[in-house]
Amino acid sequence: MGRVTTRVPRTRVDVTAGGAPVERPDTVAVEEPLEMRLGDAPLTTTMRTPGDDFDLAIGHLLTEGLLHAADEVATLMHCTDVDASGSPTFNVVEVTLAPGVVPHRPARERTEAMTSACGVCGSASIEAVRTASRYAVADDPLVLPPDVVAGLPGALRARQPVFDRTGGVHAAGLATASGELLHVREDVGRHNAVDKVVGAAAREGALPLAGTVLVVSARASFEIVQKAGVVGIPAVVAVGAPTSLAVELARDRGITLAAFTRPPHFSLYARADRVLGPTGR
Amino acid sequence: MGRVTTRVPRTRVDVTAGGAPVERPDTVAVEEPLEMRLGDAPLTTTMRTPGDDFDLAIGHLLTEGLLHAADEVATLMHCTDVDASGSPTFNVVEVTLAPGVVPHRPARERTEAMTSACGVCGSASIEAVRTASRYAVADDPLVLPPDVVAGLPGALRARQPVFDRTGGVHAAGLATASGELLHVREDVGRHNAVDKVVGAAAREGALPLAGTVLVVSARASFEIVQKAGVVGIPAVVAVGAPTSLAVELARDRGITLAAFTRPPHFSLYARADRVLGPTGR
Repeated sequence: MGRVTTRVPRTRVDVTAGGAPVERPDTVAVEEPLEMRLGDAPLTTTMRTPGDDFDLAIGHLLTEGLLHAADEVATLMHCTDVDASGSPTFNVVEVTLAPGVVPHRPARERTEAMTSACGVCGSASIEAVRTASRYAVADDPLVLPPDVVAGLPGALRARQPVFDRTGGVHAAGLATASGELLHVREDVGRHNAVDKVVGAAAREGALPLAGTVLVVSARASFEIVQKAGVVGIPAVVAVGAPTSLAVELARDRGITLAAFTRPPHFSLYARADRVLGPTGR
Repeated sequence: MGRVTTRVPRTRVDVTAGGAPVERPDTVAVEEPLEMRLGDAPLTTTMRTPGDDFDLAIGHLLTEGLLHAADEVATLMHCTDVDASGSPTFNVVEVTLAPGVVPHRPARERTEAMTSACGVCGSASIEAVRTASRYAVADDPLVLPPDVVAGLPGALRARQPVFDRTGGVHAAGLATASGELLHVREDVGRHNAVDKVVGAAAREGALPLAGTVLVVSARASFEIVQKAGVVGIPAVVAVGAPTSLAVELARDRGITLAAFTRPPHFSLYARADRVLGPTGR
């Protein structure tokens, strides 16, 4: 199975007076391509940290809206090619759908190829890139106390062993309304970390992931909020900044969005009422 | 023209005893989709910060290896659709190639669709995702003193007005061997920032961008190093961590790779000799 970290040669330089370069191998996060195939057709290739590849594949299919439930998948397998040294490699996952199941929407790449000229404009821009959610996340009765929001990044950070060793991976977590982390994944790609968490949760139970909170170590971009909404997660807590389209989508969908979550402060950009009570918008 | 930042409603929460939520609008980085079209065909859609869209389009075509020179482009235009309010929007760029020019390789999406089953494995994995460079970056005689490396992140940081206002965008810069920044761009997407910088430089002169240094505010991933190599940039300096595949590619291609560049320290992962002299590997 693929390694999560690896050692590489490294020269550490100190430019202060008298500082000398030191040869000292470093531990870095492994980044390798994963090709996901749906049946016989290549779906996409993502640069990811090996591990939890089945969660990643299922999570990707769910958060992109191609599938609606983990049990629509019949089989998941790693192709068992060997590399130059004869060792098996695991950089292709083939997903076979259950009998009678077809993808509920075309893959994004195909959607893009179908957009008409000048079709992605202004207020229509979200429409062009967004994936409809089947779930009324705006109606989710989640109550998320301020102390829970403030505590989530620290709880996530305490479960990032790969970051501890490399300083070079993102993390995502799925938490309950009381702040208990149900699943945590680390990956060089922030979207992959989210997909892995969603895949892990979806394989344990049906969508929607109602009543849960998605915590991310990075910024809150459009795609992160979208992925949450598509699988029915009503709240996103980010350590970093939000983008304009993330805020717009969260407000439109009724997803609670907290960002710059750095205790004792954080900022709410949408559906603050779930955190502050009905007086909070 | 698209805005680079925008104001959004925000409730700032303070969870310390006695802290009260404050309604205070926040400035966030604008994220909007840009559809790039090559002739009549949609090429890709990227989530980007508006501005320098022509640089982004040309830079993307160059760093992905579809084009070899900016003058292979005949015309660049924004589609002039209007949004719901009647204002023009600028979220599609159409690139027309000069007479007789055809893309030098298929777009990545099409390449992916063509990979054979289990074709992305082990030591072949880089081959599957990498784009050949036409330039012998390993032979670039660049000399990059340690003080210059250490100073580049600070020089870049001093030219990040959007980050100052939002805390939510990446930056990339193209510098000379003496540390002079020739071009700096900020974007919600780190690949976009690199493409914009490359596009700006390529529109001023021919490739390769020999003798220059790519500085990035984020991590050094495979794709960042690859983009540099494809357009002939012999050195990458990153503020953040490198990934395994970034290191592997840099060593393979002969690209100097500095990461964790946090004065007075930084780490060299490939071609340290350009920084430390011939004794440094």
